[in-house]
Amino acid sequence: MLSVGNLSRINETEFDYDGLDRLFKPHSIGVIGASSTSTKIGGLPILFSLTNGFGGKIYPINPKASEIQGLKAYPAIAEVSGKVDVAIIAVPAHMALHAVDDAIAAGVRGIVLFTSGFAEVGEDGTRAQAELTARVRAAGVRLLGPNCVGYMDLPARVFATFAPGLQQGAPKVGRIGLVSQSGAYGIYAFALARERGIGLSRWITTGNEGDVDFADVLAWLARDPGTDVILGYMEGCRNGNKLRAALAQAREAGKPVVITKVGRTPVGATAAASHTGALAGTDAVFDAVFRQYGAYRVHSIEEFFDLGYVFATTRKSTGRRLGVLTVSGGGGIVIADAAVDLGLELPALSTAAQEKIHALVPFAASRNPVDVTGQITNDASLLEKAMTVMLEDGNFDLLIVFLAASGRGPLGAEFAKQIVEMRQNHPDKVFCAVSIFTDEVRVSLERAGCVVFQDPTRALGALSALSRFPRDSSRVVHGTNTPENTIELEPRTYGQRESLALLEAAGVPCAQNWEVKSAEAAATLADKLKRPLVAKISSPDIAHKSDIGGVILNLQSGQAMADAYERIVASVARARPDARIDGVLLSPMETGGIECIVGVNRDPVFGPVVMLGLGGVFVEVLRDVSLRVAPITEADALAMIGELRGCQLFNGVRGHPPADVPSLVRLLVRLSEFAIATGASLDSLDINPVLVRSVDEGVVALDGLIIGRAQQS
Amino acid sequence: MLSVGNLSRINETEFDYDGLDRLFKPHSIGVIGASSTSTKIGGLPILFSLTNGFGGKIYPINPKASEIQGLKAYPAIAEVSGKVDVAIIAVPAHMALHAVDDAIAAGVRGIVLFTSGFAEVGEDGTRAQAELTARVRAAGVRLLGPNCVGYMDLPARVFATFAPGLQQGAPKVGRIGLVSQSGAYGIYAFALARERGIGLSRWITTGNEGDVDFADVLAWLARDPGTDVILGYMEGCRNGNKLRAALAQAREAGKPVVITKVGRTPVGATAAASHTGALAGTDAVFDAVFRQYGAYRVHSIEEFFDLGYVFATTRKSTGRRLGVLTVSGGGGIVIADAAVDLGLELPALSTAAQEKIHALVPFAASRNPVDVTGQITNDASLLEKAMTVMLEDGNFDLLIVFLAASGRGPLGAEFAKQIVEMRQNHPDKVFCAVSIFTDEVRVSLERAGCVVFQDPTRALGALSALSRFPRDSSRVVHGTNTPENTIELEPRTYGQRESLALLEAAGVPCAQNWEVKSAEAAATLADKLKRPLVAKISSPDIAHKSDIGGVILNLQSGQAMADAYERIVASVARARPDARIDGVLLSPMETGGIECIVGVNRDPVFGPVVMLGLGGVFVEVLRDVSLRVAPITEADALAMIGELRGCQLFNGVRGHPPADVPSLVRLLVRLSEFAIATGASLDSLDINPVLVRSVDEGVVALDGLIIGRAQQS
Repeated sequence: MLSVGNLSRINETEFDYDGLDRLFKPHSIGVIGASSTSTKIGGLPILFSLTNGFGGKIYPINPKASEIQGLKAYPAIAEVSGKVDVAIIAVPAHMALHAVDDAIAAGVRGIVLFTSGFAEVGEDGTRAQAELTARVRAAGVRLLGPNCVGYMDLPARVFATFAPGLQQGAPKVGRIGLVSQSGAYGIYAFALARERGIGLSRWITTGNEGDVDFADVLAWLARDPGTDVILGYMEGCRNGNKLRAALAQAREAGKPVVITKVGRTPVGATAAASHTGALAGTDAVFDAVFRQYGAYRVHSIEEFFDLGYVFATTRKSTGRRLGVLTVSGGGGIVIADAAVDLGLELPALSTAAQEKIHALVPFAASRNPVDVTGQITNDASLLEKAMTVMLEDGNFDLLIVFLAASGRGPLGAEFAKQIVEMRQNHPDKVFCAVSIFTDEVRVSLERAGCVVFQDPTRALGALSALSRFPRDSSRVVHGTNTPENTIELEPRTYGQRESLALLEAAGVPCAQNWEVKSAEAAATLADKLKRPLVAKISSPDIAHKSDIGGVILNLQSGQAMADAYERIVASVARARPDARIDGVLLSPMETGGIECIVGVNRDPVFGPVVMLGLGGVFVEVLRDVSLRVAPITEADALAMIGELRGCQLFNGVRGHPPADVPSLVRLLVRLSEFAIATGASLDSLDINPVLVRSVDEGVVALDGLIIGRAQQS
Repeated sequence: MLSVGNLSRINETEFDYDGLDRLFKPHSIGVIGASSTSTKIGGLPILFSLTNGFGGKIYPINPKASEIQGLKAYPAIAEVSGKVDVAIIAVPAHMALHAVDDAIAAGVRGIVLFTSGFAEVGEDGTRAQAELTARVRAAGVRLLGPNCVGYMDLPARVFATFAPGLQQGAPKVGRIGLVSQSGAYGIYAFALARERGIGLSRWITTGNEGDVDFADVLAWLARDPGTDVILGYMEGCRNGNKLRAALAQAREAGKPVVITKVGRTPVGATAAASHTGALAGTDAVFDAVFRQYGAYRVHSIEEFFDLGYVFATTRKSTGRRLGVLTVSGGGGIVIADAAVDLGLELPALSTAAQEKIHALVPFAASRNPVDVTGQITNDASLLEKAMTVMLEDGNFDLLIVFLAASGRGPLGAEFAKQIVEMRQNHPDKVFCAVSIFTDEVRVSLERAGCVVFQDPTRALGALSALSRFPRDSSRVVHGTNTPENTIELEPRTYGQRESLALLEAAGVPCAQNWEVKSAEAAATLADKLKRPLVAKISSPDIAHKSDIGGVILNLQSGQAMADAYERIVASVARARPDARIDGVLLSPMETGGIECIVGVNRDPVFGPVVMLGLGGVFVEVLRDVSLRVAPITEADALAMIGELRGCQLFNGVRGHPPADVPSLVRLLVRLSEFAIATGASLDSLDINPVLVRSVDEGVVALDGLIIGRAQQS
């Protein structure tokens, strides 16, 4: 078994690019289990290679045939006279290990193992798969599969796959690399790409991932010169650090990554606990990781290709200023609504430019959207003239032209020609045409780098992704969260006082606190301190103190404190007779500021995850939290704050001054550093609440809880 | 000018169905301004009628021609020997009024006026349009337009339109009626319907709505026997009651209405005031109206047709229990994720049924989704067998079958045949197939009432709409909000004490309160009352009292009350020297319960709108409010509560007991009744806060403000 969530030593320099090159760039392919029947999985790769023009050698291996699909067949791979770069293995499970050994012995450089019946069918299969993995790793040969559908290299016409959809045609050659853990979903994806006329560079399915996994392929595609955009379909991940390293590779290469990760946590699940651990479900952590590395997570296969299509067709990164030119007022409003929802800006044209628009079409809407109306069918040059006015005047990053149905009409080709010319004169801008066009006209637009959609709302969704693509890849945190282990926690729940002391030492400002063990001591101490005071039960076993009478606020005298002590201890003893009680904690009563909850939880895949939420109803009712995998930068921390639905609170609401966001940012970074320093010895850390005071007044943790964990040897 | 937002006398029985029948069901059409040039707006309706097989008579009217497009032309409509049911007018604006008079004099029963240059171009045009309206209304002739693109009746082959897209072909005949205020958007919509193979019954554009408006057409389509589903594109509405009456007609007829209403309020707009008026933007009221009448509001043209397509293809209403049968584990998870997001349920198969599935495919996922894997390409009968197991065992309302790419493969037709048979045996269930099919196979599925999609997520979006379609139309409030005027407010801001008294009289439980005018009076009164007390400034001019020191809580004695009086009056005088001060209001301090804000605001289109929000951050930061146009039922009130993002608070969170929702429901209905009773004399009403106590303990309004308004004569 792979150890899950280990803080492994893999970093971005350690991907085996050469080994993957050998696997994915063969000049000769042997098919072990080759079949004359071209509908069998041992026959299909041969059929596809022959019908789609593979230029290298194909060696069918089958002890019972001398010729297969017109090619000379060999009884064993050892008998092949030429060199076999990659072996495809399409034999039943009980013969697979033997076939792998044969291939290794014959000196292949990569293996594609279609065979199913391994880890996906239970323990015996898992053991058999582990044996396979051990053999290929010992031999230094990379293996794709088992239980995968193989791969295609479209430019080089390599079809090391039995993907059934290929009989109906291969997708066209393009600049999108697609990697899928699921074979069937991968097949559906390339079939849809083919139907939509979207071109692919590479198509790779990883199946059970006995050796090569999703992250390997992602990192390799990040360096593949034929690939500009990477689409990935994921169901799970066993090594979070490796996935992050691969995402960082793509980010550094400036290649957008669009991800479908399935198995999201059901919204509105029953988890009622407001303990932060319950909020940091693994799927939310995936979400945070994709955000952290600038990858796009999408939830439909259409959006998957919409983004891939846009990134492959036009420039990768742009600003947010959108110009809208329309022949239909309604279309313009639909586009404006969608653009505003998606965070794009629609700056108005200058008065001078608006006058020029009115000179063209007297009753045109001229602000932006510019509506040149149906007049355009009487005078096609209006389109070009209006585009010129808009591009000379407006400082637009993107221009969308809505032609309603007229792209299909007699003037469609003329309109497209004008847009193509405009794009050539303004290569720094993104052009999008929305209409129904003939295929020929659409392709002419796309060749010129203009994107084409039929649905304006979908167009905006994809365009807005361009505007979110990070122009600056330097902000990626390259380090993985390999522990430094400079602080070693014990495997136990730390008391509150201890927890606060550890946090204070880690650079987290904490409220002053004193622990007392009797009512008399409480009274004596309270008389000496500045009041009002707060008394709380001190126990490592109680998370929600106030629910069981474990907190009393606003104590104004020693006597009140003594009473509070007795009431708290009695109430807690009644509600939780099992709980260990360290005593009662006294603190100055802090008021004002914004209550937040912050913490660190261990994710089984990604390790320590920093969490931020707003206190009260935000966390308890709305589950409004933001997450980042440690380590985080100040920029990450700021992004976390901005992602909260209630983040407007920090700007000051109803007369409250703005909050001290820089101090909260520092606190989050300190927690991340603490998480890295404590490494695998930290199970979880909660600060609930931390008060964020007004600007320049800092933050203060009022309560903290740290749980250490036993480290795996 | 139409008076905007008038509480008119129109109700659902007053639509002029006969007049609309005469306009929309012609046997003969005269075209005034007929042209021999078949690309001109006076030539196109003739071209379209001739090429698309209109069976009635066409009379071109043109003083300069004796024959047009092969038909005998007449110099004037009066010269036509036969009867002219409908006149299409395609002449310049300055000739339009004359043409309308001619048509009326010739005894036409309806007029379609293409001509532009009326209300859309300014005041002169608005006057000319008003004159047109007056003429046709005096003559009892219904007019579509001006500035419209006309209409089509596809079953009867009537093409009273110059829609340019029709040269490329008409949409096929179907059961979807489409009404659009925008001509260009309407044209784009039918062109997309044609491309997708979606059939239409009627296609009607209303343009400037000089006479017939969107609501007229909606109500008329609700009775049109050829129409099962209504799609509407709206930009605005001048008569909210009439729109509501039309929506109620469609609801009663059991016809789903899918609406694109453009011009949504930008999300995250700057409005910072927490005054309820600022929250009840008009677009949010449209949203509430559509929800109230069970209409579907969509935000993209794709979703517009997705819903239309599903409602036209299969049963209209269904439960939420979804069975998922897939050939790809990944596809199944994508579908399950989307289904959960959309509120569908995926009940698990029984153990016995799961065993049957395993007997078919040993390693199949069998719970639900049921994954029969790629085995299906080796044994096509697995699909039928698995469907049978699922339908016999699971109590599913909907079954979705994900075939990945194999719908296009050699077995596609066979799979479709099995699904069609299954559907015939289970006519009460909804069947959806997701794959790429040939057109022929897709049509065979659709003919049998199975819906077909390529994108699983889009399929789920549309299917979930079926499950939301109200099965019970009896819950619609039929009454429009015509005022009863049993309470006449004065046009002024009522003081708090007065406001609370009015609310109390209207059946709203209000906190006890006393108004005092001096510190001494305050102290004397406080000594007599049960404490703690709250003191608040009493002023009609101050909405946010606590922001300016106008509220002091938790007063425990007469002396404390006297001090509070002085501090409040001084603080308010400093902050708002302009404000009228009635004195200070004393109330018992109420604690516990959930703070809500409720109110009524006048919408310019729809009249009084009832608002509910949760207090504090929910309203101030998240703008979390729900709205309904008065009058509302208890069911409406309950739905309002359920729509709040924070509604979980009412169920009890972290040890709090559930709240008294029935009392809040009654309060909302009382406010709605008060709004109807005060009618046009009510400008706004706010209760902020109202405390909702634990179950059976009621609600109490702590503060209220009523503003009356001058009524238009």
